[in-house]
Amino acid sequence: MQNFVYHNPTKLVFGKGTIAQLSDLVPTGLKVLMTYGGGSIKRNGVYDQVKAALKGRDLIEFGGIEPNPRYETLMKAVEVCRREKVEFLLAVGGGSVLDGTKFIAVAAFYEAGDPWDILAKNAKPTRALPIGCVLTLPATGSESNPIAVISREATREKLAFSTPLVYPTFSIIDPETHYSLPRRQVQNGIADAFVHVMEQYLTYPADAPVQDRLAEGIARTLIEYGPKVLRQPRNYNARAAIALCSTLALNGLIGCGVPQDWTTHLIGHELTAFYGLDHAQTLVILLPAVWRHQKRAKRKKLEQYAERVWEVKRAKDKAEAAIRKTEEFFRTGLGMKTRLSECGVGTERFEEIAARIEARGLRLGEHKSIGRKEIVEILKLSL
Amino acid sequence: MQNFVYHNPTKLVFGKGTIAQLSDLVPTGLKVLMTYGGGSIKRNGVYDQVKAALKGRDLIEFGGIEPNPRYETLMKAVEVCRREKVEFLLAVGGGSVLDGTKFIAVAAFYEAGDPWDILAKNAKPTRALPIGCVLTLPATGSESNPIAVISREATREKLAFSTPLVYPTFSIIDPETHYSLPRRQVQNGIADAFVHVMEQYLTYPADAPVQDRLAEGIARTLIEYGPKVLRQPRNYNARAAIALCSTLALNGLIGCGVPQDWTTHLIGHELTAFYGLDHAQTLVILLPAVWRHQKRAKRKKLEQYAERVWEVKRAKDKAEAAIRKTEEFFRTGLGMKTRLSECGVGTERFEEIAARIEARGLRLGEHKSIGRKEIVEILKLSL
Repeated sequence: MQNFVYHNPTKLVFGKGTIAQLSDLVPTGLKVLMTYGGGSIKRNGVYDQVKAALKGRDLIEFGGIEPNPRYETLMKAVEVCRREKVEFLLAVGGGSVLDGTKFIAVAAFYEAGDPWDILAKNAKPTRALPIGCVLTLPATGSESNPIAVISREATREKLAFSTPLVYPTFSIIDPETHYSLPRRQVQNGIADAFVHVMEQYLTYPADAPVQDRLAEGIARTLIEYGPKVLRQPRNYNARAAIALCSTLALNGLIGCGVPQDWTTHLIGHELTAFYGLDHAQTLVILLPAVWRHQKRAKRKKLEQYAERVWEVKRAKDKAEAAIRKTEEFFRTGLGMKTRLSECGVGTERFEEIAARIEARGLRLGEHKSIGRKEIVEILKLSL
Repeated sequence: MQNFVYHNPTKLVFGKGTIAQLSDLVPTGLKVLMTYGGGSIKRNGVYDQVKAALKGRDLIEFGGIEPNPRYETLMKAVEVCRREKVEFLLAVGGGSVLDGTKFIAVAAFYEAGDPWDILAKNAKPTRALPIGCVLTLPATGSESNPIAVISREATREKLAFSTPLVYPTFSIIDPETHYSLPRRQVQNGIADAFVHVMEQYLTYPADAPVQDRLAEGIARTLIEYGPKVLRQPRNYNARAAIALCSTLALNGLIGCGVPQDWTTHLIGHELTAFYGLDHAQTLVILLPAVWRHQKRAKRKKLEQYAERVWEVKRAKDKAEAAIRKTEEFFRTGLGMKTRLSECGVGTERFEEIAARIEARGLRLGEHKSIGRKEIVEILKLSL
């Protein structure tokens, strides 16, 4: 087991009717900017619940944060924060709204240059507005982690930053507010959480047995309850299980003291930046290809995964059996596409994508063994 | 799944050589009281590492906190805090030192009456000294929770209190410092962590599937690595696994949104108070008796536990098979006693113990179905 530091200060407030607790959770006397997305919160009642809980507060709004939140949009919110002297940010939405709000939080105080440098040049923010969150879509784990992923329209870039400054102070998760989510967002959310688990688990045995068991437990729950929640959108306990799994998948816990991969995410971000594919759709397509490409290096862990998560007892090639089971879960269990060709993507830009990742100085995977050539090979395996 | 709030602000600093990080973790400029136990830290090098990391700090010491830390001893430390204007407490030791330090932290500011009222009368402290921790014995989970259990010699009482004020601000866990622990403390620690998991898991199915999987994963790791660490005291990865399991067993996470039992602990505290038995020894003896007594109410969960933790596939009475496997783990895997009669305890005081729990207005178990009569029955099953 590797050394680690784990410090997750976010307060999770989980369950039915919890949005009303905003009146206690949002500090009084502060100017609040409520951020949200395309307006679904106005149709499903969440907006009204938030406004009711914060009646009488000094509250302004910034809507229209898009999926894969854009720098260009977020900088408008930064202007609002500066002009209106905003003191607290309340993100109401899914991972995109929350990620965007994390960027707003640090950009509002960043004066050393263009806040985009925080993403593109690893510039370190030193201060952030405090953030609270009402999570309406379980998927990214952003509600309990220090990470945000932001896109820039002008340059077709999609990049991540991380700083403990942007851990939400609290996150409210009411699974009842997930009943009205579009099917595609639910599919994407389950797949995203599942791949988060795998990025931290499916590497090589590292003598970290309890982290393995936790990761396997979250994966098994997603496999069992993902299809269930798609069949029964108003099943509270299934919604709650998926929501809790999504948080646990990327709140840092299962990544403590273990090697991590993240190849799938880093190639996936480029596919989203170039083709506008949904984030989770890119992950579902790429994960089996990464595993096939890295089958020798990942064999031991693939076999453990086959045995413990899929209960594959006998198979000539257990690793391959595990990859097939996973594809079947994405395809049949979640009803998602598993091939780039199904999404209208061909080989045209594979070289450009690989070159771009290389240009950032990145070599991918738990062994840093995946460079330009290997990225193209993985993309070809995804066709 | 039940509603829950989870907020664990403790920073865990885990791994080899981490005690040196105290120089960054303990705030500068504060008067520090370092608390410890019987002096083992002076023999195993931990004391020297702490002193080296905090060289030049304004640091005083209070040693001699005993296992099952006593009110009488701790009040002397409270006097020191008041007299010396202590501003930060650094607990260096196991769960007893840390629990005692948590009591010191709140008692130092408690002026509404006798600080014992915090335990005996559920009086609510409003302020506490900040606490840091160097954990030298994995067992209680106190390093990452808001709970402390304190004993009072004069009245033979052993009681718990809980307040978010006493979450350690940080806890350093260096598994290498566990190499020199006496065998009995290691056995006790593993058993304590195991029973913590079971108090939160082995109740009835509550549609909280991921919490179940996490609890099962911690239990399986303790079953696999507990005997291993007893056989190989200097196996770092086994030490690390046990240490992390102990923290995860009682940091609040697996108890989120599920019913909890705690019968075993509440009866066990009385056996320690009356007979001076080690805390974990009482748990190991009582847990199978509680399960046998409650077999009908707990049957479904016992069967799930049999299947998932012990891989019992076929058995006439799966619940009974699970109980036997657990006894065997305690007895053979950990080498502990599993009967009260082996510890020289007879039936003499069973009625007194049961009456005492009843007098506190407590009914035990996840259904509040265990009263005076049932406590005596459970104790008889433990003979």
